[in-house]
Amino acid sequence: SRGIVLTLACPDAPGLIAETCGFIFRQGLNIIESAQFTDQTTGTFFMRIVAEPVAGESDAQALSTAFEPIAAEHRMRFTMADRSHRLRALIMVSKFDHCLNDLLYRTSIGALPIEIPAVVSNHRDSYQRVAAHDIPYHHIPISAATKERAEAKLAEIIEDERIDLIVLARYMQVLSPSLCRRFPGRVINIHHSFLPSFKGAKPYHQAFSRGVKLIGATAHYVTEDLDEGPIIEQEAVRVDQVTGPDELVARGRDVEALVLSRAVRWHAEHRILLNGTRTVVFK
Amino acid sequence: SRGIVLTLACPDAPGLIAETCGFIFRQGLNIIESAQFTDQTTGTFFMRIVAEPVAGESDAQALSTAFEPIAAEHRMRFTMADRSHRLRALIMVSKFDHCLNDLLYRTSIGALPIEIPAVVSNHRDSYQRVAAHDIPYHHIPISAATKERAEAKLAEIIEDERIDLIVLARYMQVLSPSLCRRFPGRVINIHHSFLPSFKGAKPYHQAFSRGVKLIGATAHYVTEDLDEGPIIEQEAVRVDQVTGPDELVARGRDVEALVLSRAVRWHAEHRILLNGTRTVVFK
Amino acid sequence: SRGIVLTLACPDAPGLIAETCGFIFRQGLNIIESAQFTDQTTGTFFMRIVAEPVAGESDAQALSTAFEPIAAEHRMRFTMADRSHRLRALIMVSKFDHCLNDLLYRTSIGALPIEIPAVVSNHRDSYQRVAAHDIPYHHIPISAATKERAEAKLAEIIEDERIDLIVLARYMQVLSPSLCRRFPGRVINIHHSFLPSFKGAKPYHQAFSRGVKLIGATAHYVTEDLDEGPIIEQEAVRVDQVTGPDELVARGRDVEALVLSRAVRWHAEHRILLNGTRTVVFK
Amino acid sequence: SRGIVLTLACPDAPGLIAETCGFIFRQGLNIIESAQFTDQTTGTFFMRIVAEPVAGESDAQALSTAFEPIAAEHRMRFTMADRSHRLRALIMVSKFDHCLNDLLYRTSIGALPIEIPAVVSNHRDSYQRVAAHDIPYHHIPISAATKERAEAKLAEIIEDERIDLIVLARYMQVLSPSLCRRFPGRVINIHHSFLPSFKGAKPYHQAFSRGVKLIGATAHYVTEDLDEGPIIEQEAVRVDQVTGPDELVARGRDVEALVLSRAVRWHAEHRILLNGTRTVVFK
Repeated sequence: SRGIVLTLACPDAPGLIAETCGFIFRQGLNIIESAQFTDQTTGTFFMRIVAEPVAGESDAQALSTAFEPIAAEHRMRFTMADRSHRLRALIMVSKFDHCLNDLLYRTSIGALPIEIPAVVSNHRDSYQRVAAHDIPYHHIPISAATKERAEAKLAEIIEDERIDLIVLARYMQVLSPSLCRRFPGRVINIHHSFLPSFKGAKPYHQAFSRGVKLIGATAHYVTEDLDEGPIIEQEAVRVDQVTGPDELVARGRDVEALVLSRAVRWHAEHRILLNGTRTVVFK
Repeated sequence: SRGIVLTLACPDAPGLIAETCGFIFRQGLNIIESAQFTDQTTGTFFMRIVAEPVAGESDAQALSTAFEPIAAEHRMRFTMADRSHRLRALIMVSKFDHCLNDLLYRTSIGALPIEIPAVVSNHRDSYQRVAAHDIPYHHIPISAATKERAEAKLAEIIEDERIDLIVLARYMQVLSPSLCRRFPGRVINIHHSFLPSFKGAKPYHQAFSRGVKLIGATAHYVTEDLDEGPIIEQEAVRVDQVTGPDELVARGRDVEALVLSRAVRWHAEHRILLNGTRTVVFK
Repeated sequence: SRGIVLTLACPDAPGLIAETCGFIFRQGLNIIESAQFTDQTTGTFFMRIVAEPVAGESDAQALSTAFEPIAAEHRMRFTMADRSHRLRALIMVSKFDHCLNDLLYRTSIGALPIEIPAVVSNHRDSYQRVAAHDIPYHHIPISAATKERAEAKLAEIIEDERIDLIVLARYMQVLSPSLCRRFPGRVINIHHSFLPSFKGAKPYHQAFSRGVKLIGATAHYVTEDLDEGPIIEQEAVRVDQVTGPDELVARGRDVEALVLSRAVRWHAEHRILLNGTRTVVFK
Repeated sequence: SRGIVLTLACPDAPGLIAETCGFIFRQGLNIIESAQFTDQTTGTFFMRIVAEPVAGESDAQALSTAFEPIAAEHRMRFTMADRSHRLRALIMVSKFDHCLNDLLYRTSIGALPIEIPAVVSNHRDSYQRVAAHDIPYHHIPISAATKERAEAKLAEIIEDERIDLIVLARYMQVLSPSLCRRFPGRVINIHHSFLPSFKGAKPYHQAFSRGVKLIGATAHYVTEDLDEGPIIEQEAVRVDQVTGPDELVARGRDVEALVLSRAVRWHAEHRILLNGTRTVVFK
């Protein structure tokens, strides 16, 4: 794709849309998508614009510099992304690889605008599946003794492969607080429950015990507080008495893969803006 | 409707269906609906049969007596209900009356097989709405000082009107433990969240603060532990950043009314069997 | 509510958002909601803006006049609605009144921003239900012989009550082509199928015969071609073999009421723009 | 899995459940799942029983022979399947292979109780994807001139591989009437619309033109009448103006894969009984 994606957040004020769109227009760009939202509870304005140059190529770096005075005046946080840059995503997985399979397939047919330069796992189980896609598979086993060394290896891969986004696709190890802090808003996890219900381990067994009639999955950004990060997307699916614990796991697979792939796509398309502990998603 | 509804639960064993259906057949009844379920985790067998007499009328009381030896042999809990008896439901409501309106309308067009001999409220707000349906409206205000007397009045109405089922249709007062104990499995509440998330007060505000992407409603039997009783039905509905706290309340209304009306219908049709802290629902 | 709602459609071009939002800003208004969409297949740009005056009151008529030069320059169709004006909706119904009941209730609690100055029916069935809301009920029976006179009466009510919107809430008579032509985009019908499946009469029976696993409902603007007008909203609900023709009707009721109330609300909030035979809905 | 699955359909009569379950009991089997349904419009009774031997092994062939007198007496169509036999499914695909990928993955993790001895395609596109699963890929190109020879090859594969079930997973060629007749109720197709809407070619483009607000997918048995066979499963997904024709295709992929995998699983578990042009599905 050509052009840029501008996202911004700032205190609400009259004239913000006119000023921002006026800037885009004067820079010789045509807006092809635009969405705004004002959080009335905090008085914060959020905006996302996709724009293409009327002629020639756009230079996201130059546009970013040109936009800085406006941003400064209105105390905006903003990003100016080049649409031709595909985010480089690292997928991490343990034994259950339905989300991994889903992400690999979607990426292979062009349905997910990311590149996957590497997959990391603490198990060997998914090696052949990843190899069939011709993507490097890094097996980094983790034990109490090796945890620190494993994280060092991971950090090396992230740096070497210039990773933009880490996707925890049913990765059952907890990332260290320091790693979480280094990538705020850039690590997405799928939790197999309808958060905040059933945090922690074995959510499907918790759901079975409580006798719920719907189960869910939640994609969220990872923060130091486990299962407490900003929620990106959720989905629920109906269950009943026939759905024993094993069948819950099976039903959950479909909804987990769907929810995670949506979250990754929205992130890759710069559709998600952080709003404190919540998210604004411009679908 | 003619005929009976038999529901039963007992330890699983070979031959239970054959023996029960054989009994029904020998009593001159034709099975028109039948469903079974075995909970593998507890080894409990559940069954529901709807049957009509091949000729003439059935006598639920006599059938119940005739079934007792089989029930005793297999340690069955069972109920034998006369389909011509409509459950007599007491509706209780505070200020928000969307669930009440829904139950009244469904009952009035024959979509809900219950009778509503009385509505009780701690407010006057819904009086005209109930009066338009020609149903007695009992205004029982509640304060710390009058709580005990109010419950005594309620108990009187329940007895006078031979109430089979109490429906808490957004009734914002807590029933006393003694009342809950007197009607186990016969008081249905609608909670405006996707339990076990957001127990207690103001669940929509809790949901907004946590930034969830789906909200829900839960119909459950009332026990002494608030919001912990066996879940009958749940439903979820999508929300996003545009959905502020007030709009959450509005979206929740539809799903609350739907979930509660399903739970009441299933109860009235003897489709719900208690399975410890969970429910088996034969839809 | 204070302020105005501006909706517009025109050939796409660079700078439209900046120019429109600049106009709003210069008129002393603050944008509180804004949404845009470009139909790539036709090159048409659509926009909806909700704005409040920074101080004092806004004058929709004056703003409309002031906006005309911009509109003319870009060949815009536009509307400038005063948010304090509630649309005056005429509800028409035959025998099934679940949609009517739903619209009356929502309006009574303020969930639907309309006024209902009159209900028209070719039957007497819903009289008491409407009377309980203190709304005039016009019984206009229709036969082949009286059809013309009935339409004349209807036209009189529409004029006397200054009706903005006609809602066919399971009204089983066909409006005359001339009436349809007089109110383009101002008559909303609920059809009890998932259009374009099962046009015409008895859609639930058609659905049962075909053995579908989902049934639906469709709210659409009425045009001279029956069941072919622009679709506003649709929803589907799961059915199975147990769902006989009567139960299909029962399940359909909930989804019909929900779909129609959404369509009416979106229309009343000026969220729907016609796009040829399709609609753009800014939710 | 051990044991058998018995499915049957016959004219309704009193005592059918008791007699059938009595047979199962006397043969030394324990019923672990059982479901019945009576179609009131045709007076037909349907039943499915899953049973395990209380001790040792069951012999489906012997049980079938033993059941024949009961079946003959009540004019039952019935099947007695050995649960240890996994259906052998041939997958056919053209260029879009999302359904194929989904079926391969589910089968590989044991979520779909089938074997896939062969994949047939009129294109080479999916070769590597199938090869990664170590499953033979038969490339059978089809043109007007080669159609007959292609079908002969297909018939050979079906015979050589003892195929029980043919799955058309977005196979864009029409099977010959003679092939359809040879495998009644054993060829499942996924159609990418909510049938009966948008039969024939390019349903997503038809859906876009009509401006529908939901799109769907339909899994059905193939008969000689294209897109008219008995429907097994359907699902719908929400779209809006932003969803252009290409994005409709993308959204449709998920729902197609889900619907087809359900249909294949239910067929493989003997959960689907034909009921004229409709299906009874015991989920």
